[in-house]
Amino acid sequence: MTKKVWGGRFTEDINEVVDTFHSSLSFDKRLYSQDIDGSTAHCRMLSKKGIIPEDEATEIINALADIKREMARGGLSAGDDYEDIHTLVEKALIEKVGQKGEKVHTGRSRNDQVALDTRLYVREAITRAKRLIKGLQVSLVNLAEKNITVLMPGYTHLQPAQPVLLSHHLLAYYEMLKRDYARFSDCTKRVNVLPLGSAALAGTTFDLDRSMVAEELGFDSISDNSMDAVSDRDFVLEYLFAASVLMMHLSRLSEEIVLWSTREFGFVILPDAFCTGSSIMPQKKNPDVLELIRGKTGRVYGNLMGLLTTMKGLPLTYNKDMQEDKEGLFDTVDTIEQCLMVLSLLISEMRFNSEKMLNATEEGHLMATDLADYLVNKGMTFRNAHEIVGKVVLFAIDEKRTLKQLTLQELQSFSRQITDDVYSWLEPASAVTRRNLHGGTGTEAVKKSLERAKKEMAS
Amino acid sequence: MTKKVWGGRFTEDINEVVDTFHSSLSFDKRLYSQDIDGSTAHCRMLSKKGIIPEDEATEIINALADIKREMARGGLSAGDDYEDIHTLVEKALIEKVGQKGEKVHTGRSRNDQVALDTRLYVREAITRAKRLIKGLQVSLVNLAEKNITVLMPGYTHLQPAQPVLLSHHLLAYYEMLKRDYARFSDCTKRVNVLPLGSAALAGTTFDLDRSMVAEELGFDSISDNSMDAVSDRDFVLEYLFAASVLMMHLSRLSEEIVLWSTREFGFVILPDAFCTGSSIMPQKKNPDVLELIRGKTGRVYGNLMGLLTTMKGLPLTYNKDMQEDKEGLFDTVDTIEQCLMVLSLLISEMRFNSEKMLNATEEGHLMATDLADYLVNKGMTFRNAHEIVGKVVLFAIDEKRTLKQLTLQELQSFSRQITDDVYSWLEPASAVTRRNLHGGTGTEAVKKSLERAKKEMAS
Amino acid sequence: MTKKVWGGRFTEDINEVVDTFHSSLSFDKRLYSQDIDGSTAHCRMLSKKGIIPEDEATEIINALADIKREMARGGLSAGDDYEDIHTLVEKALIEKVGQKGEKVHTGRSRNDQVALDTRLYVREAITRAKRLIKGLQVSLVNLAEKNITVLMPGYTHLQPAQPVLLSHHLLAYYEMLKRDYARFSDCTKRVNVLPLGSAALAGTTFDLDRSMVAEELGFDSISDNSMDAVSDRDFVLEYLFAASVLMMHLSRLSEEIVLWSTREFGFVILPDAFCTGSSIMPQKKNPDVLELIRGKTGRVYGNLMGLLTTMKGLPLTYNKDMQEDKEGLFDTVDTIEQCLMVLSLLISEMRFNSEKMLNATEEGHLMATDLADYLVNKGMTFRNAHEIVGKVVLFAIDEKRTLKQLTLQELQSFSRQITDDVYSWLEPASAVTRRNLHGGTGTEAVKKSLERAKKEMAS
Amino acid sequence: MTKKVWGGRFTEDINEVVDTFHSSLSFDKRLYSQDIDGSTAHCRMLSKKGIIPEDEATEIINALADIKREMARGGLSAGDDYEDIHTLVEKALIEKVGQKGEKVHTGRSRNDQVALDTRLYVREAITRAKRLIKGLQVSLVNLAEKNITVLMPGYTHLQPAQPVLLSHHLLAYYEMLKRDYARFSDCTKRVNVLPLGSAALAGTTFDLDRSMVAEELGFDSISDNSMDAVSDRDFVLEYLFAASVLMMHLSRLSEEIVLWSTREFGFVILPDAFCTGSSIMPQKKNPDVLELIRGKTGRVYGNLMGLLTTMKGLPLTYNKDMQEDKEGLFDTVDTIEQCLMVLSLLISEMRFNSEKMLNATEEGHLMATDLADYLVNKGMTFRNAHEIVGKVVLFAIDEKRTLKQLTLQELQSFSRQITDDVYSWLEPASAVTRRNLHGGTGTEAVKKSLERAKKEMAS
Repeated sequence: MTKKVWGGRFTEDINEVVDTFHSSLSFDKRLYSQDIDGSTAHCRMLSKKGIIPEDEATEIINALADIKREMARGGLSAGDDYEDIHTLVEKALIEKVGQKGEKVHTGRSRNDQVALDTRLYVREAITRAKRLIKGLQVSLVNLAEKNITVLMPGYTHLQPAQPVLLSHHLLAYYEMLKRDYARFSDCTKRVNVLPLGSAALAGTTFDLDRSMVAEELGFDSISDNSMDAVSDRDFVLEYLFAASVLMMHLSRLSEEIVLWSTREFGFVILPDAFCTGSSIMPQKKNPDVLELIRGKTGRVYGNLMGLLTTMKGLPLTYNKDMQEDKEGLFDTVDTIEQCLMVLSLLISEMRFNSEKMLNATEEGHLMATDLADYLVNKGMTFRNAHEIVGKVVLFAIDEKRTLKQLTLQELQSFSRQITDDVYSWLEPASAVTRRNLHGGTGTEAVKKSLERAKKEMAS
Repeated sequence: MTKKVWGGRFTEDINEVVDTFHSSLSFDKRLYSQDIDGSTAHCRMLSKKGIIPEDEATEIINALADIKREMARGGLSAGDDYEDIHTLVEKALIEKVGQKGEKVHTGRSRNDQVALDTRLYVREAITRAKRLIKGLQVSLVNLAEKNITVLMPGYTHLQPAQPVLLSHHLLAYYEMLKRDYARFSDCTKRVNVLPLGSAALAGTTFDLDRSMVAEELGFDSISDNSMDAVSDRDFVLEYLFAASVLMMHLSRLSEEIVLWSTREFGFVILPDAFCTGSSIMPQKKNPDVLELIRGKTGRVYGNLMGLLTTMKGLPLTYNKDMQEDKEGLFDTVDTIEQCLMVLSLLISEMRFNSEKMLNATEEGHLMATDLADYLVNKGMTFRNAHEIVGKVVLFAIDEKRTLKQLTLQELQSFSRQITDDVYSWLEPASAVTRRNLHGGTGTEAVKKSLERAKKEMAS
Repeated sequence: MTKKVWGGRFTEDINEVVDTFHSSLSFDKRLYSQDIDGSTAHCRMLSKKGIIPEDEATEIINALADIKREMARGGLSAGDDYEDIHTLVEKALIEKVGQKGEKVHTGRSRNDQVALDTRLYVREAITRAKRLIKGLQVSLVNLAEKNITVLMPGYTHLQPAQPVLLSHHLLAYYEMLKRDYARFSDCTKRVNVLPLGSAALAGTTFDLDRSMVAEELGFDSISDNSMDAVSDRDFVLEYLFAASVLMMHLSRLSEEIVLWSTREFGFVILPDAFCTGSSIMPQKKNPDVLELIRGKTGRVYGNLMGLLTTMKGLPLTYNKDMQEDKEGLFDTVDTIEQCLMVLSLLISEMRFNSEKMLNATEEGHLMATDLADYLVNKGMTFRNAHEIVGKVVLFAIDEKRTLKQLTLQELQSFSRQITDDVYSWLEPASAVTRRNLHGGTGTEAVKKSLERAKKEMAS
Repeated sequence: MTKKVWGGRFTEDINEVVDTFHSSLSFDKRLYSQDIDGSTAHCRMLSKKGIIPEDEATEIINALADIKREMARGGLSAGDDYEDIHTLVEKALIEKVGQKGEKVHTGRSRNDQVALDTRLYVREAITRAKRLIKGLQVSLVNLAEKNITVLMPGYTHLQPAQPVLLSHHLLAYYEMLKRDYARFSDCTKRVNVLPLGSAALAGTTFDLDRSMVAEELGFDSISDNSMDAVSDRDFVLEYLFAASVLMMHLSRLSEEIVLWSTREFGFVILPDAFCTGSSIMPQKKNPDVLELIRGKTGRVYGNLMGLLTTMKGLPLTYNKDMQEDKEGLFDTVDTIEQCLMVLSLLISEMRFNSEKMLNATEEGHLMATDLADYLVNKGMTFRNAHEIVGKVVLFAIDEKRTLKQLTLQELQSFSRQITDDVYSWLEPASAVTRRNLHGGTGTEAVKKSLERAKKEMAS
């Protein structure tokens, strides 16, 4: 039988099976430090307001600090013998200081307490997520800088499109992560609101100093409506959504590196430490880490979908359904932190086969757009130029040659306006040089992007 | 460093962080008994085919049985020191029998091995799910039988519609569960196929007797395409879907009992053992168990969505993304088993306030349809009768009386065709009596349904 | 055969079935005005940069304005004869101004064009969503103000918990909507970035003035990476997520009003105009509108999930999969706009049965917490008080009386510390009066909330 | 104002906005033929039971047939002037035959009527889906047969693993589709149940012959519980799930063909008719159709998730939320039918570059497993052989040679047991020949699979 704090009204024992079913201790014990921090701040305030005598408050606060240390060391695990972490901490407190330990629950209910703990937890998780995102951004910027001049095919529809700088390609992910960072930041605004003082649902009859508690705990503001405060889980959903989009981005990057590390693309050499082999096939070197990251996108989406489903149609205020907010959150926090960490390490150790990338840039007829631009420069309309170049490409495909490998005579058979200067124009590197507009793949443009990124990283 | 079976090709050590990242042991250790059963059957076949000498096979099979017993007792947990359960079991085997233990992996790869283990696991999970569904059906049938004559309002749009028998209402869930049962059964057909013999992806060069292994392990058939066999997770998705619809049904039942146990409805008295109280409000008796079941629907949907997402767009054959199939499956299995068990117990102990239900049936103007039918019986078209009765209802609402409480004179002011026999016609019980068509709420019809259900339960 | 702009390279006709399959005109025609606005701004810039002669630019811009007017009137619908809206508009332009119409596509690709159009569309949709959210907030504030003193039971677990003001309950939704508003606002920051100038993926060789176009179109900034700019759909996902959480909130409000309008609760009288009847049951008045809003939550979640799935694992840059971003977006926009509008109207016409709400507040033993607080005030610890009041409640339930209806003698048999002043303390209204802390349900606290809300509405 | 059939009880006009909001005609008009078929069968039965006179019934049935023809021709579209398709058809009937048309609604409600119509619709959709799945299977089998001897690399983790036959690879999809077919079939069992006779929720007072209607409409059985029958949408969910898994399979196939048609893989030449070009890049030939199929997986998943969410936690019986079952269903039906059709066409016209595939098979060290098997054949344990071959592969990578290109002396430096016969053993074709176990990639095994498939197709 787990220990409970609401036994008076009940005439029957709680069935053992049921007990296990609604105990949340197995997962919410992860909130122990947030729970203790919250209680400490609350107790300090109760003391300042004269609701708990100062000496008792001191004793309680010290005991809470002890409990926190013990739990950090893995003590007090206490099996699954309690209904939830709040009960576990309260009982531990009472064991240390006696009945006066009960006073810390004055003007508070588990409904606002669990909302507080979860907010503190999410706030810390956001801080960590932002730091790890920045870490991955730094890895990307470093890798881009190291490969600043490497040319590669830019793709649309996975078909070669136009030559780009590898550094430009990598910085596209820098931009995605910048938005992810901003989304986690935005989320903070709605996380960082103190719910304490809402009590069970209606507010409390005690004359609490909510602002003092908010300040103690680093909250920006206090909640404006007690019924909303105990039934709001938007901030968890926002975290899960920011995490989902982040994972979507990581899945795209992972997919690309998986492709680049195929024998067929051959653009990248993955560090052995991030690959695994096969129990059967001795030649295998599998990009498992990247596949796992890609695969884990599913579980994060699932966690988002799960909580959205759970919250749908719930009447006010607290309903037990909302206990289901935690496991999916914890799993998501662990998942994105691991993925960011591992991917960041892998990115720092990736090496590219720049020769193979250059060859691919030569061979895929990627200069076709530039050939059209060349004709436009000679006075043709773009649609005409596009039509003519289309035919040149077909001819080159039949001949199994690149555009550059066609003779001037052959080229001129498609348009008289083509002259000898076309060959320097058809160098992939020149295509990049021509695209120095802000945001483009030109070397100068990319260098400016790198500078900008490094400044942002430093701030 | 975890122990691995594919070290030859690698020149660097696997990074510690990465190691933890792709180890699956923390969750796939749940498959130990399936893994050992699979290896045992495979070994027996290898021996019969002369690939492993009989005495060695016997030694291996005995050692596997020992390992299984030890693991069942919680021994051999071995930290997270191995990459996965297959490696753990293999190393344990080699420790017991020496190098010859390696032979059990002949003609097999982890790709078909993990497919096998998961299939065995899902097959057992289906069997348990079906038994538990039947358990809940029995509880419902018993409860229906105990309350065979209790009248209650039937609702559409949560507005009182027509009187029904509580037993009829309860049996609606019996029907849903019958479909759930059938869906799990259907799923079995596609689960119960032996993938072993597919090896890594292309089939094996060894002359295995796949049918013998299938028979040993109780499979109905053997897979027809090795590439499909190692990359198919449809059977997991089917389980997750069957579980999702089941949870949807349980969420509807839970929602209803939550409603019925409100002060406002007051139809049901929940056993204390299935409720919890409040740390603040002494009068509270909360239907937590039902709310949790309703809330847990979200996580099961999430698990389904997660795996669907993970599998989308994966090229053949095995990709590491597919390792993500397990945790969501295990969580779903635990969730539905707990929910079915707990709900079944709760159902067996529910008591109804039949007086309150009857009152509700009298008061909500539920007899309006029957009054219209009465007028149709007197020769009116239904549309006319419907129109007239609409006006009678408005009048009764204004008067704050039930239809039965209107005087004959009042009723006749709406239609001359109403005579004294209307009052017996307006008894809720008579409405039920009039609906004895197969599938209807009439007492006779419901009794037949109960008989049918009991026969089905017995089979 | 639809008209296409990339025919040169192709030797076969596009199959009719395939044509229909990848044509997007049937849905992206909704973007016609954004497409034309974008082209107009782009053309103006090309003219300023000397790329298009001024007189030609004027002609083009005037023709675009004509086309916009014609399309607004429903002209130019053109069957499904074009591949997409961009082609349709371009062909219409060329019909009006001849070949020079092609020039507007200079330095632009459909990849950055469709990104631009969608951003303009989402930006407008956000503006509308915010206005409609404010509309619903105003309705809620008005309703709260009109019912400022109405008492009702506050619920947790759908069980009566403590008395609250109806106005306080309604303002909880005001708070949720405030967060929704903020989320749509946050989303704007990442929507309002000009992608034009990214061309197909690599940037353009033309010397465009991107900032000028951004200013013309009211964008805050220009995109920093061309490859990201054409493959980013985060802003659509953010809109879908903000819409999902909004729908979740509306589903909760709808659920509550559905409950309140049951015969059993009887708290609310819905305006007939928002209900429907039954073709069979003349007495029915169904809260269809609210059920539909609740039900439509599913489709919005589904649209979010759909796009998250589609974007997962896509390599850079544009892939045709991304065409799937639109229909779910459009459907979501329509859904939330309709739901907000209809709910806002309904809220303004809702009337409450305050007598029934007060009765419910008297009967559910909601004053138990306050009775415990009373005992604490007399010097008891809260846990003791909670225990004693639990027993009082059990006694009252057995006696079928409210706490207030127990005699002083009876009350004193549970605790000697109860005296005559308990009865005024047990008035529900007094419970509310005691909770005037910021965010609580006290009349003064709620009045301040209303003032704050009205100030926010005005800003 | 739309026409309604339940006006009597209402005192206010239905607001125009609200009207549009809950009208379902814009989408449920798709059910017109099912609705008319259902009414026809119901009417025939009512006549046989003497509830409608025979001559009236004949007149009604003829009129219904006329209406069906008119609607098939696109007549009677009637704007959005009716609440739903049932009302539209009924009014059209009354216009033709006068008031007696109302009689067809005897003993029926819209609740069981809409359940019936949807079941008929899903049943037909299943039949079409099964036919189209078979069509795609036939295309795959033909393609496999045409390329029976073509070798290609089999992949795991997108890394070359072992040589396989292209035909074997294609038949893996045949297997997936076989399961899809079976899932749609299983679903039929639960679709094909007549709900009519359940009326609004409680059954009907009329003495209907439900079995006769079931037989008329080709149903296998009649529903056993009226409350379940009007609130069950499992059969829609099952269709959506079967469609989701199908789309997952198609997304995998599409992904693979997209990969194969990259310049880097170069395995496949897509027919021009199934590709599109670029408005900018003249060389582009994009596999749009395949990307769209892959992308559309998202919307089908979303539709499944949407309805699961909508159904969660709904109390019995019919709630308006359930009207949301249709649009997602219709969209899914259209999506999978289009995708199956288009993919089937594309598959029939795909051509392979078998030379490039063979080269890829030579180069990726795919024979490493077979080299290990070779050593096992010479008496080595597999683990040892695996270790040694790992080193050979590393050496070959360094030397940029294939295994076959190593000299005997070089090979023997790794193991003395290697002799001259190793070279024939290292031929990719020989690897395939060694895997003729049932389900393997051996030519004989694949030929048997093809025979089996063709037999199944014929049945």
